[in-house]
Order: sequence, then structure tokens, then C-alpha cells
Amino acid sequence: MHDPNCIFCKIVTGEIPSRKVFEDDLILAFHDINPITPVHLLMIPKAHLNSLSHAQESDAPALGRIMAVAGRLAREQGADDGFRLIVNTGRVGQQEVMHVHAHILGGKEPLGPMLPRRRA
Amino acid sequence: MHDPNCIFCKIVTGEIPSRKVFEDDLILAFHDINPITPVHLLMIPKAHLNSLSHAQESDAPALGRIMAVAGRLAREQGADDGFRLIVNTGRVGQQEVMHVHAHILGGKEPLGPMLPRRRA
Repeated sequence: MHDPNCIFCKIVTGEIPSRKVFEDDLILAFHDINPITPVHLLMIPKAHLNSLSHAQESDAPALGRIMAVAGRLAREQGADDGFRLIVNTGRVGQQEVMHVHAHILGGKEPLGPMLPRRRA
Repeated sequence: MHDPNCIFCKIVTGEIPSRKVFEDDLILAFHDINPITPVHLLMIPKAHLNSLSHAQESDAPALGRIMAVAGRLAREQGADDGFRLIVNTGRVGQQEVMHVHAHILGGKEPLGPMLPRRRA
């Protein structure tokens, strides 16, 4: 269930502290320590899962919970007029921590285009 | 279940054609008609849902299916070294069609930063 070398698993177990905003049996949400927008949350399944490329049908309940709860958490944190949910996966997606996490990005101004001008 | 004025509901019912890559009881995936990356899929719940801000726990199975299947679909379309999943929500997220959809963006080169330089 937990990978002892994974920083997000250590946040789940409490070994590493975080500013939690939501927790239930399947998922955990906390503030990103390097926010790039006024509201910047990370939402993770509690069970270790390397990336969306590794997801199985058995991961669907936790992943669906993340999507279903994201809007409420964003609102509660002040992102009450929309947000962007991003899951970076693998090398091309520039995933930085190998434990699935959804970025919830919000603020007051529209976030701009989905990608920089250069197309991959 | 379907909104007769929704373009993505019309894609679900077949009233508007699409290049489908996956379909089951809960979700549909098809190629974006204006791709911004070599692989650019849209994944939607079949049942109408305006945005992630409107999501309920009852939407979790379809939303979880999208997340659980995204990696396999991306690989099958040639995005075999990662991708980015993005769900734009509301005004700040610059959502363009008011039926929840996950963009699956992939290619050969890393996609770059999650947001343009300017921060919201």
C-alpha cells in the first residue's frame, strides 16, 4: 500500500508534515509547498500508485473520488469561479513525484492556454 | 442523462460524428478536432455533467474510469512515454464546452510548464 521511499506516501503516513485540506479513506489533499497560483492543491490516492500509466481498474474508486471532490475543495479554498485539474504523467508529462497527484490550480484570473506556445 | 443542446452529448448519441478511440458503459474517448499535440484525446462521461464544480459522488465511477483508462488509451495512440491529463473547469479554468472533458495531451517532447509565465 505504501512505498517507504515515496515522499507522498510519507505525507500520507504523517512522517512528513503537510497542510492538509481534506482526507478520507481513499484520498488526501494538501497545499503544494511551491504554489504557482493563489490556490494550488495536490490531491493523491493514499495507496501508492506510480503514475496514471500504471493505473488499473482497482484504482478507479480513489481516482474518481479525487475528481468528484476537487470542485468542492477548490471552492472552499477560495477558487470559487473555476480551476484547472492537471495530472502530469511520465517523461513527456514532466511528472516530478512518482506517486499519482492531481494539481488543482485556481485564482481570480483565467489561467491561460493549456500549453506554452511551442507544441510537443 | 443527455442535454439536447450539448455538443458532447450529441457526440455520445452519435448525432455528431467523432473519431472514437474507446467507449464503454460510462465513458467515451475521441480525438480532439483541433489537436494541440501529436496525441490529443478528449475523454468524457456519457452522462451530462456541466463541470467538475458540479460533480457529485455519483459521478465518481465515470470520472474514475476516465483516469484509470487514460494511460492505456494514450499508449495505444502512440503517447508511450507519458502525457498530461487536464480538466478545465469554469471561467478561471477556461472551460470551453460545458460537459466535463479530460484532455489527454501527449507526443514525443516534454510538454513544458503547467502554466504560461504569467501567474493568475
